Amino acid sequence: MSARLVFVVAGVGNGTGTGAATARLLAQKGYRIALVARNPDNLNRLAKEIVEAGGEAAAFPVQDYSYNATLSVFDTISAYKWPSAEPSEVRVALWNAGVQEVWKPFLEVSQEDIENTLQFNVAAAFGFARGAILAFKKNGLDERGARGTLLFTGATASIRGNVRTSGIAAVKFGIRALSQSLAKEFGKENIHVAHAIIDGIISIGSSDVRLDTNSIAKNYLYLVEQDRSAWTWELDLRPAHEKW
Amino acid sequence: MSARLVFVVAGVGNGTGTGAATARLLAQKGYRIALVARNPDNLNRLAKEIVEAGGEAAAFPVQDYSYNATLSVFDTISAYKWPSAEPSEVRVALWNAGVQEVWKPFLEVSQEDIENTLQFNVAAAFGFARGAILAFKKNGLDERGARGTLLFTGATASIRGNVRTSGIAAVKFGIRALSQSLAKEFGKENIHVAHAIIDGIISIGSSDVRLDTNSIAKNYLYLVEQDRSAWTWELDLRPAHEKW
Amino acid sequence: MSARLVFVVAGVGNGTGTGAATARLLAQKGYRIALVARNPDNLNRLAKEIVEAGGEAAAFPVQDYSYNATLSVFDTISAYKWPSAEPSEVRVALWNAGVQEVWKPFLEVSQEDIENTLQFNVAAAFGFARGAILAFKKNGLDERGARGTLLFTGATASIRGNVRTSGIAAVKFGIRALSQSLAKEFGKENIHVAHAIIDGIISIGSSDVRLDTNSIAKNYLYLVEQDRSAWTWELDLRPAHEKW
Amino acid sequence: MSARLVFVVAGVGNGTGTGAATARLLAQKGYRIALVARNPDNLNRLAKEIVEAGGEAAAFPVQDYSYNATLSVFDTISAYKWPSAEPSEVRVALWNAGVQEVWKPFLEVSQEDIENTLQFNVAAAFGFARGAILAFKKNGLDERGARGTLLFTGATASIRGNVRTSGIAAVKFGIRALSQSLAKEFGKENIHVAHAIIDGIISIGSSDVRLDTNSIAKNYLYLVEQDRSAWTWELDLRPAHEKW
Repeated sequence: MSARLVFVVAGVGNGTGTGAATARLLAQKGYRIALVARNPDNLNRLAKEIVEAGGEAAAFPVQDYSYNATLSVFDTISAYKWPSAEPSEVRVALWNAGVQEVWKPFLEVSQEDIENTLQFNVAAAFGFARGAILAFKKNGLDERGARGTLLFTGATASIRGNVRTSGIAAVKFGIRALSQSLAKEFGKENIHVAHAIIDGIISIGSSDVRLDTNSIAKNYLYLVEQDRSAWTWELDLRPAHEKW
Repeated sequence: MSARLVFVVAGVGNGTGTGAATARLLAQKGYRIALVARNPDNLNRLAKEIVEAGGEAAAFPVQDYSYNATLSVFDTISAYKWPSAEPSEVRVALWNAGVQEVWKPFLEVSQEDIENTLQFNVAAAFGFARGAILAFKKNGLDERGARGTLLFTGATASIRGNVRTSGIAAVKFGIRALSQSLAKEFGKENIHVAHAIIDGIISIGSSDVRLDTNSIAKNYLYLVEQDRSAWTWELDLRPAHEKW
Repeated sequence: MSARLVFVVAGVGNGTGTGAATARLLAQKGYRIALVARNPDNLNRLAKEIVEAGGEAAAFPVQDYSYNATLSVFDTISAYKWPSAEPSEVRVALWNAGVQEVWKPFLEVSQEDIENTLQFNVAAAFGFARGAILAFKKNGLDERGARGTLLFTGATASIRGNVRTSGIAAVKFGIRALSQSLAKEFGKENIHVAHAIIDGIISIGSSDVRLDTNSIAKNYLYLVEQDRSAWTWELDLRPAHEKW
Repeated sequence: MSARLVFVVAGVGNGTGTGAATARLLAQKGYRIALVARNPDNLNRLAKEIVEAGGEAAAFPVQDYSYNATLSVFDTISAYKWPSAEPSEVRVALWNAGVQEVWKPFLEVSQEDIENTLQFNVAAAFGFARGAILAFKKNGLDERGARGTLLFTGATASIRGNVRTSGIAAVKFGIRALSQSLAKEFGKENIHVAHAIIDGIISIGSSDVRLDTNSIAKNYLYLVEQDRSAWTWELDLRPAHEKW
């Protein structure tokens, strides 16, 4: 009885964004989907939707984003009994959370703002990465030569500080640093770490001059499917018509 | 009678590298392949191989790499009578040439070295880009919303100067600048321009701890297939085990 | 009675590093020196040394690095009665602290490690920056057209993640993001923010193939003395013989 | 009879720009000034002005910018008999030329445009760098531990391609690559190579919200005076009020 692959995604919002779109796409590809976020209602609604579409998905709400919460959720996911009998292997994880992001003039950024945003975004990303990498290390190599893929959603604020972006850029730069360090540290253990710089307004609707979440999801799937002779650490994604 | 898509690739070496691998892959996807390089024997051999495998391919040798040669080859390609009757549309072009690249200590770089390498690589890339963009502008939008895709093969020397790399880095940086300028200038005209930083030793053989040309080719195909709501300008590709 | 300028430096270690060297140099230039760090003995020893050399300096120990501590120390400094009678103006501030920096393999980075390092380095840098900028905003323009200069000491880990650097790079990238955001946000208010990437082993001794702290200090003075028609946000500093 | 230091500057325009301002400043510091450009009248006028102000300066016109012209001018400069009797040592060189820079929409960039701009800017910069480095290698170490300083004037187009900048960015990126390669290759031979990214409109007049050429010159002097324990490869210079 061969194992079923699990995709863990942190940050699925109200089900209309990048995390949810990637969950739907990987469900179609046969992954079990472990949905992590704070709002149980949103998680349950998305899990239900995926299940009704023929996939497997379960909600793993966290009370707050923190190192410990996003790390320990991997234990919960590992212990979870999925409806179908096969064992699970966590193979793909996506850090897509953006919690209490701070977009304000610097002098309006409070102590609480910055301490929280560091905790919820950077420390929690470290916990999530640890959970993912420990899970991947249990896996054998798949047909592309990998034990697992850890993805991070970045933004223009990941590479450029700007007016009013001190709070958001500090955490986005930090997450990018984490992803690059991990890519270098774990590549030789056949763990693939990648960072996508999403640049542009994300459209939930139909306009293709905005970033489409389903297109972003396809790009994440592409990263997952790269074989280990040619791995990408970082790519940018933006609409054709975006000014940059 | 619907048009057949044409892939123009400059730089196919002896048929074992990235350009040739991408040609083979796009031939399998139904593209007509226009092979551009200096050595007619190599070109003819590869064209023959692709044709024997059921594809369409033709050799378009250039006497030397130069602005004029790589621009005018697009006219020759447009005028070419392919065996099958359908009209052609140039939809994808790959600048993969690396002609008389200069990897030497700075004091050994001669006037001829630098003048030639600028001519063969940067000026010729400008000519090639002009040919591709003029061809793309004749096309309607395809199902992903694009008129065409122009790809450039880069290297670590595209983003970092180093000891002994003044000659190669000067041209690779220059080509990268061209690709970024074009991506910004022509995105709004639905022309996709992308630059891949290939970092690592390319293996012709089977080792998957080296860059595999077929894997690189798959990544180029991925860039070609991105829909215009989420285009990548730049990505890096390196083996999992590469130190960087 | 014209005001005396104050230089506030956070991070003076045991008095042999960059922060202390910059304090000594600016004392020679007539600045009052406000020394901020955790170890009161070290601070007092350095203050005494500067005073004995004819300067003015005082120790402002903080119990721990935190947003609140590094912010509120500016109030303490403002309220401080210096031996000489002239009023004070905080004109230069240097964030040179590196507190519990985390240089370990990722899997050895604990929750406490990452939470502390974010708190001590990034959150505290935000508090320090707020204190500095609020102080600068009270100043008139000096002869170079500025209200004040806020300097940050960076490192190679500020721009590149590497094996074993997830913990340090996450905070150094974050501080760099802060500095760039502030440079853009406050330049038009005539506040100069700069970031120095110190790359190489810092020598306390005499070897000039290592980074000399007095040389770094001279570079900080240079940044302080730039007139506002040509401000630098970022520069790198490394020994001539460094491999990079 | 101790040697007099020579400053070689390529690109002095009509005497109102960065190259001329740096020439004036270094003349005040006691350097003999070797002025290189195409227009002999401009060169002679500036040389006369410097001499009348008590300095030493001579004009070394080149017919065209080319690898050979900017290289061989160093021989001419070495052979030149200065009015005062002391021998000369070329110690500082500044590549400040921007010849037939191409700022146009890509489709308006002609073959001649791109071939000329590569020749006049990149190939000529290689020749100039060779001349400078060969001259520096003859020098002993000065008090800061260096044999010489080679400076390059860059721009935002050195680091970012944009709409309409394919022609200018290709050469500016190329020159930046050259400077970084040289900094790494010759640092260990105690030759300092630096690159300044000048970002903003340069003012000839008095407004200090524009880049002032005298301020830029002071920054070049600062780079020249760095001791070899802490050398800068790259810094940015922009007015306080510049949006970037």
